[in-house]
Amino acid sequence: MTSPSTERRSTAAKGGGGSAVSRRALITSLAVAAGAGAGAVLAFRGDDAPASPAPATSADPPLPEPSHGTYQAGIATPQQRYACFAAFDLDVGAPAGKAPSTAQTAVGFQELMERWSGAAERLMRGRPAGPLPVNRPGAPADSGIADGLQASGLTVTFGLGPELFDRIGRKDLRPRHLRELPAFSTDRLEPAWSGGQLFVQICGDDPQIVSHAFRSLRGRAPGLARLRWSQQGFLGRFGDATPRNLFGHKDGTANPRPGTAAFDDAVRVTAADEPSWFTGGTYLVFRKIRMDLPKWDTSTAQQQDQTIGRRRDTGAPLSGGHEFTPLDLTRTGPDGEPLIPADSHLALVRDIPMLRRSYNYDYAFQAAPSAEHRHDGDDRPGHSHDDPLHDHAGTGHDTYDTGMLFCAYLRDPADFIRAQRKMAAADRLNAFIQHTGSAVFAIPPAAEPGRHLAAALFPAH
Amino acid sequence: MTSPSTERRSTAAKGGGGSAVSRRALITSLAVAAGAGAGAVLAFRGDDAPASPAPATSADPPLPEPSHGTYQAGIATPQQRYACFAAFDLDVGAPAGKAPSTAQTAVGFQELMERWSGAAERLMRGRPAGPLPVNRPGAPADSGIADGLQASGLTVTFGLGPELFDRIGRKDLRPRHLRELPAFSTDRLEPAWSGGQLFVQICGDDPQIVSHAFRSLRGRAPGLARLRWSQQGFLGRFGDATPRNLFGHKDGTANPRPGTAAFDDAVRVTAADEPSWFTGGTYLVFRKIRMDLPKWDTSTAQQQDQTIGRRRDTGAPLSGGHEFTPLDLTRTGPDGEPLIPADSHLALVRDIPMLRRSYNYDYAFQAAPSAEHRHDGDDRPGHSHDDPLHDHAGTGHDTYDTGMLFCAYLRDPADFIRAQRKMAAADRLNAFIQHTGSAVFAIPPAAEPGRHLAAALFPAH
Ligand code: HEM
Ligand code: HEM
Repeated sequence: MTSPSTERRSTAAKGGGGSAVSRRALITSLAVAAGAGAGAVLAFRGDDAPASPAPATSADPPLPEPSHGTYQAGIATPQQRYACFAAFDLDVGAPAGKAPSTAQTAVGFQELMERWSGAAERLMRGRPAGPLPVNRPGAPADSGIADGLQASGLTVTFGLGPELFDRIGRKDLRPRHLRELPAFSTDRLEPAWSGGQLFVQICGDDPQIVSHAFRSLRGRAPGLARLRWSQQGFLGRFGDATPRNLFGHKDGTANPRPGTAAFDDAVRVTAADEPSWFTGGTYLVFRKIRMDLPKWDTSTAQQQDQTIGRRRDTGAPLSGGHEFTPLDLTRTGPDGEPLIPADSHLALVRDIPMLRRSYNYDYAFQAAPSAEHRHDGDDRPGHSHDDPLHDHAGTGHDTYDTGMLFCAYLRDPADFIRAQRKMAAADRLNAFIQHTGSAVFAIPPAAEPGRHLAAALFPAH
Repeated sequence: MTSPSTERRSTAAKGGGGSAVSRRALITSLAVAAGAGAGAVLAFRGDDAPASPAPATSADPPLPEPSHGTYQAGIATPQQRYACFAAFDLDVGAPAGKAPSTAQTAVGFQELMERWSGAAERLMRGRPAGPLPVNRPGAPADSGIADGLQASGLTVTFGLGPELFDRIGRKDLRPRHLRELPAFSTDRLEPAWSGGQLFVQICGDDPQIVSHAFRSLRGRAPGLARLRWSQQGFLGRFGDATPRNLFGHKDGTANPRPGTAAFDDAVRVTAADEPSWFTGGTYLVFRKIRMDLPKWDTSTAQQQDQTIGRRRDTGAPLSGGHEFTPLDLTRTGPDGEPLIPADSHLALVRDIPMLRRSYNYDYAFQAAPSAEHRHDGDDRPGHSHDDPLHDHAGTGHDTYDTGMLFCAYLRDPADFIRAQRKMAAADRLNAFIQHTGSAVFAIPPAAEPGRHLAAALFPAH
């Protein structure tokens, strides 16, 4: 890593929402309010006058993929091995503790997007994120935890939640299909892990690089936004093979391949359908899905395969062939029943277009409270005593949390809704899974050079 | 991975504690009790008659290190990149729901150690763990989530907690220095993350391999033991360089090197001091230490370096030189003060012998309950509103959990206690850290071939 001491913010403060002067005054007072709350004397780096981006040195590795006019990094990118997902809510401080106006909120939002866009770009190049915006004189410019590490394929991907557009006075520019998902009959959602106005997906091949990036981003939020939830996932090192989920099945077989027309058809929103600023963007549906491993592990191999519709070992459809052989839903076995059961996962969701870019999670139990800390019974979110996934008397598995951080990138959340309705109604998987978290975001196209990711929402006026 | 279908348990059921017949009867009834609790008809694989170990094929990779007569794997082993730590308590079912006798508990304990020792050995060879002991006919022999993955340097290390020896009627054989740690003035311990009768450390270079191993072990516990807590950590891919902790400092510099006399002096218990079965063993002190990253990140570089006593960038002591230059506590600066402050971490704990084999953790907040799920205020363990690490108004960092899973292997926990007393009394680090979990275990020497890890506690009689 290069020395951070010469780093400057590489995004210029441009665009509407207030003049440079009133904006600086607002942001400075926000920072002071935040600093006072933390009980520390903090000085704000008030250099929001246009700054030229730090020149890229020849040693800088190229960005993971083309950085603008198309998808953000982390969507068509081959999946890295670790992911951190986090949602934030705007929490723009205002002078004298008053609730901020919509205009003030919009300014705060733009400031955050500038900080984040600039930091993310530097991080993806394997450079330090640059000094925190609110910092003590003499504080180091970076946490240093990534010093000596490679960039490790880091990608940072941002999203905007349904509520956001109202908050920043840009309701008219909200993507047309961006609204909260409907409730599904099988939902057991935990509000603490759901929703959010702003979204960050951080993926990389080194967990310390992911931790570093997340820290660099959340350290830029104080006074502007507040972390709402975060989740962490991993994939095994399967190389070119399809990774396996925690049910042992290959997961991702039917995904469209980046660079194909099928990929763009499934993922990329179109100009005809959406506000023009959003062309080239996509949507993300994020679901935290708990998987009942003890129940799965003690069911039979046949039950498992028939639940999915594929063989666990090879990933081939039960109708025959190899992993990539097309399904044949009409083929029957000696008993006259279809080889791929009609209520198998595959039969229900096949051919619904989306890019699944999910990660496994295995938190076991990291936060199980002691008996003394419980009130009457077990009051953790999602851990009630009548919860079938958390009360396997005698299995020794009664309180852990493990499963899939399901991510679907798609041009219209309606495709997810259609698949999830079918699943909720019939899928054999329902006996083994439970949706406990949910969120949906518009994923803007990559930023234009020198502009932040949401700059197009605030055209100069 | 080889096909699991021909797998057999490779440890023979030998040793005292009951004849093969009464033992099988007991275990079978335990299994039935457990199965009934789970509401499923389970058949117990009652083949506890001596079985010959599965022959190692020439394709089997060698074990990570010599497997008996010395340390277990995972101690002198170079640190892998992921770790899962878990504690279990014995929970031996008895027929008709009666509390088990000490003899029954001892039998259950041995059964568990046999299951675990055999599974761990197979896993470390990159093979499936073998079928679960309590399984439905037709259930697959392994979860399959590691199919296609390398062994990835997996090590599994077992430990025995202070309470255990009473429970199994082997008080006389308890290691001499195995007792709960004293309270330290700076402790903020959460019982839910502390203590335990049995301990497992699973380390590897692929998180899915670690997840697979943990699942294979916890799936062998039902009816015999119950998961008490688990924690997960990582290290960045620093190659041959010393890894950095989440304060950005190189951590491990002063560790003794495996294979040296200094290493054994620090780590290996001696025959003179301990019951003979324990020769070649060691102790583990495990501490979950929260680190206040926002506070650290907004302190100055000088404060940071003086807190540790080393430079963050190079790891060199503040008295000069490079990372491995010996400290000079007498050297003073222009102001006449020692360059390494007397209350720095280094000045306080230097030369206290132990092997630190710690991991970073960054859970952010995975389980923050929503406002609706809170009772009066925030009732999560370790998250009270007057907790200075969790109430940084305005910092946006108010509820996350990140820090170090501190592991010290040492021949006498007294060395840890000495270091921790000094730290609690004076260490500048105290402003930035908080111990929230604690446990101590005896780590037996590696098992002899064909015997389980605690077999020496039950000599044939
Ligand atoms: C923990 C829950 C889930 C598990 C274990 C799971 C597992 C799988 C597996 C093993 C496959 C076959 C391999 C592949 O093509 O990737 C698959 C395919 C698929 N899944 Fe899921 N899935 C889950 C949840 C969902 C959800 C919530 C949706 C959307 C609502 C979904 C949509 C799909 C689609 C669209 C396919 C491709 C089907 C095709 O065209 O062949 N899955 N899933
Ligand atoms: C989060 C808490 C802690 C942090 C951030 C931390 C950090 C460090 C660092 C950066 C070093 C210098 C590099 C090295 O030799 O590894 C060090 C050394 C050391 N630490 Fe810690 N440490 C922590 C907790 C502890 C605890 C709880 C103990 C034992 C009670 C301990 C014992 C030691 C010892 C014995 C050394 C070697 C000193 C020498 O001989 O030079 N540390 N620690």
